[in-house]
Amino acid sequence: MQCLIIAAGRGSRLRALGEVKPLVPLLGVPLLERVIRSLRSAGVDRFVVVTGYEGDRVETFLKRLAERLGTEILCIRNEAWEKENGVSVLLAREVLGEEPFLLSMADHLFDPAIARALLATGHGPDEVLLAVDPNLSNPLVDMEDVTRVACDQKGNIRAIGKGLERFDGFDTGVFLCTPAIFDALERSCREQGDTTLSGAIRILAAEGKALGIPIDRFWIDVDDERAFREAEEALLEQTRGKGNDGPVSRWLNRPLSIRLSRWLVRYDITPNQISLFSFLLSLLAACLFAVGGYVALALGGLIAQLASVIDGSDGEVARLKYLSSDYGGWFDAVLDRYADAFLLFGLTWHVYQETHTPLSLVAGFLAIIGSFMVSYTADKYDQRMKERIGKGFRIGRDIRVFLIFLGAVLDQPLPLLVAIALLMNGETVRRLVICRE
Amino acid sequence: MQCLIIAAGRGSRLRALGEVKPLVPLLGVPLLERVIRSLRSAGVDRFVVVTGYEGDRVETFLKRLAERLGTEILCIRNEAWEKENGVSVLLAREVLGEEPFLLSMADHLFDPAIARALLATGHGPDEVLLAVDPNLSNPLVDMEDVTRVACDQKGNIRAIGKGLERFDGFDTGVFLCTPAIFDALERSCREQGDTTLSGAIRILAAEGKALGIPIDRFWIDVDDERAFREAEEALLEQTRGKGNDGPVSRWLNRPLSIRLSRWLVRYDITPNQISLFSFLLSLLAACLFAVGGYVALALGGLIAQLASVIDGSDGEVARLKYLSSDYGGWFDAVLDRYADAFLLFGLTWHVYQETHTPLSLVAGFLAIIGSFMVSYTADKYDQRMKERIGKGFRIGRDIRVFLIFLGAVLDQPLPLLVAIALLMNGETVRRLVICRE
Repeated sequence: MQCLIIAAGRGSRLRALGEVKPLVPLLGVPLLERVIRSLRSAGVDRFVVVTGYEGDRVETFLKRLAERLGTEILCIRNEAWEKENGVSVLLAREVLGEEPFLLSMADHLFDPAIARALLATGHGPDEVLLAVDPNLSNPLVDMEDVTRVACDQKGNIRAIGKGLERFDGFDTGVFLCTPAIFDALERSCREQGDTTLSGAIRILAAEGKALGIPIDRFWIDVDDERAFREAEEALLEQTRGKGNDGPVSRWLNRPLSIRLSRWLVRYDITPNQISLFSFLLSLLAACLFAVGGYVALALGGLIAQLASVIDGSDGEVARLKYLSSDYGGWFDAVLDRYADAFLLFGLTWHVYQETHTPLSLVAGFLAIIGSFMVSYTADKYDQRMKERIGKGFRIGRDIRVFLIFLGAVLDQPLPLLVAIALLMNGETVRRLVICRE
Repeated sequence: MQCLIIAAGRGSRLRALGEVKPLVPLLGVPLLERVIRSLRSAGVDRFVVVTGYEGDRVETFLKRLAERLGTEILCIRNEAWEKENGVSVLLAREVLGEEPFLLSMADHLFDPAIARALLATGHGPDEVLLAVDPNLSNPLVDMEDVTRVACDQKGNIRAIGKGLERFDGFDTGVFLCTPAIFDALERSCREQGDTTLSGAIRILAAEGKALGIPIDRFWIDVDDERAFREAEEALLEQTRGKGNDGPVSRWLNRPLSIRLSRWLVRYDITPNQISLFSFLLSLLAACLFAVGGYVALALGGLIAQLASVIDGSDGEVARLKYLSSDYGGWFDAVLDRYADAFLLFGLTWHVYQETHTPLSLVAGFLAIIGSFMVSYTADKYDQRMKERIGKGFRIGRDIRVFLIFLGAVLDQPLPLLVAIALLMNGETVRRLVICRE
């Protein structure tokens, strides 16, 4: 599948951010790269990008991006970039040939599901499909500036434009076009003097060849600084994951790590570096535990909890910057196991130094092995039995580290070790029983 | 797919084993059940079994087996079971209908791949395919008693019989038949007075309708006590697995555990019970370590190694008795992790009691976590990266327990803990590096 992306305009309302609009980094990744990555994950493998304002810089960026992604990106320069967007579309006619193509704006971020839904919808030979957002109260829509769409009951577009009084949804800026769009653009230009894309859609709509496809998914026109901030918020919210978080993670760690990630994405820091830093912090906490005395113990507890917060950022940064990898997840998991064990050994050492009771060694040993077994059975479980454990309450790392934090700050390391030993080994036995069916 | 199994004969040469032949348990599972399970795993879902000698007992067994396996098993009684096997085949004509069917003997064990290969071979409307063993030096073949087959270059059977001087292979007793076999049997009986299956094959062969399919896989005609012992050996050899064993397992544990399994399969002991028993032995060994003193230490080492040997039998018994399950493998793995940790904690305790050096606690802790990490990364690895680690030398549980055994018997627990700590954590780091590509 091929896609035409319009990246010619000046984007003057975003210029405050000090970069030509398609290249403005949003959470560390330029807008245009986000658009291209979204489309790629929807199945597009050939891109035609119409550049204009600051065309050299945009084209240099795209050349490097094409190499990085190993995908075809063809640039066409629109010297008349100050004109309406229909002019840019017409320039790509020859390059796109007779095949249908997706059409998107360089400054519209959207869920790949929107492009996938358009591709999955059947269309007639000369038809154009427009993804229409049916959510009239979508808070991400700028009601002053958005293009409104009115459809009949069959989905045919009846009217499209910024000023419509009665409408059924918003133009998301994502189209599935046939070459019929070019003839419509030429007619619109010739007959109405209208060189906008909306003008061409109106011509096609009059012939019943423009369909609005209602798709209620995330999209946003990043047109000004307010929209830019909202887009950031929305993407950050999306990185939270889908309910895999435990309670401590959800209510304490995640809100903090998301703020941290927003700041980290600006720098050239890899997720694995974040994992490693979090691990080293845990190691420091373990050493503080072992030092002895309440102050070091409490400080260690605080640092352990801080490390747990930071440990959420590696995955968030990876998702925000398209750096997720199997290796990264595994590396993080291995370091987490080491971190857990060192924290618990530090506590055990602390208690043993202060009390010299053999009980502390036994409790510490059982806490370490229990914590491990909970992680070990979770993996084995996912691998072997799929989706049976994990329904309902699950004792994860977030709870484990939070208990360590509490035990340290409240100066109750021995009861803490006993509690973790009981909880974790109990959970392991529970899993053994549950899985037995 | 349907299959006809001939289980009518007396099997007088195996009577020494004190059971009617199809029900003679071979490594804990009756011959006929092994045949049916092999065919089931090749895709057969309907069985027609011709019984005869001791028909009531065989039919009672099959009724229960059908319930256990949830498969259809239809029994036909051949009162003239003392006659040749062709008579039994003819009795099933009506029940089998017009569809092709596999034909097998109740006393021939074979690799399911033989049945699968026959099913995968195309055949003409009135043809019969016979799986022929092309390995003329197959040690499992009784050269006195085997039916020999000679084929032409196209695979057409030229001659079949026990006395052939020139032949290309052996009749494995596994056929893929069309109903043409029934007409051939009737003709053979009428024209030649020959009621053997070989007679019918000769008739079909004369018309170019009997094909020998050469398949070099395990099969054996369990006709007398010698063959029975050989079949046991062959099955035991097959349970060794395909090279996943570490060196200690291959050269020490497995040869012993296979002897143990041969004995265990006779009793009503489940693989999970064996896993649990091995775990309890490890726990006993850990307690002996903790007791202190050389005698307890060495005895603990011996028991730990014994537990490791027994730990091989759970999987063997499971495979030999068709009791393998995801849960069983997981249960065993979880108990192994606990066993490893307890053994190492017992040793740590032992050393700390005797020396009171903090080093012993640190070494013990690192040995425990390292052992865990090796198992943890192995699983994560298999799950995420597939088949990259594991090429070449792999430090597995067999080596770990053997080192514990050596360290205990040689009275070197502290060097042992240090060695395990270094080895296991080193291996984990190596895996982290290797997987990074």
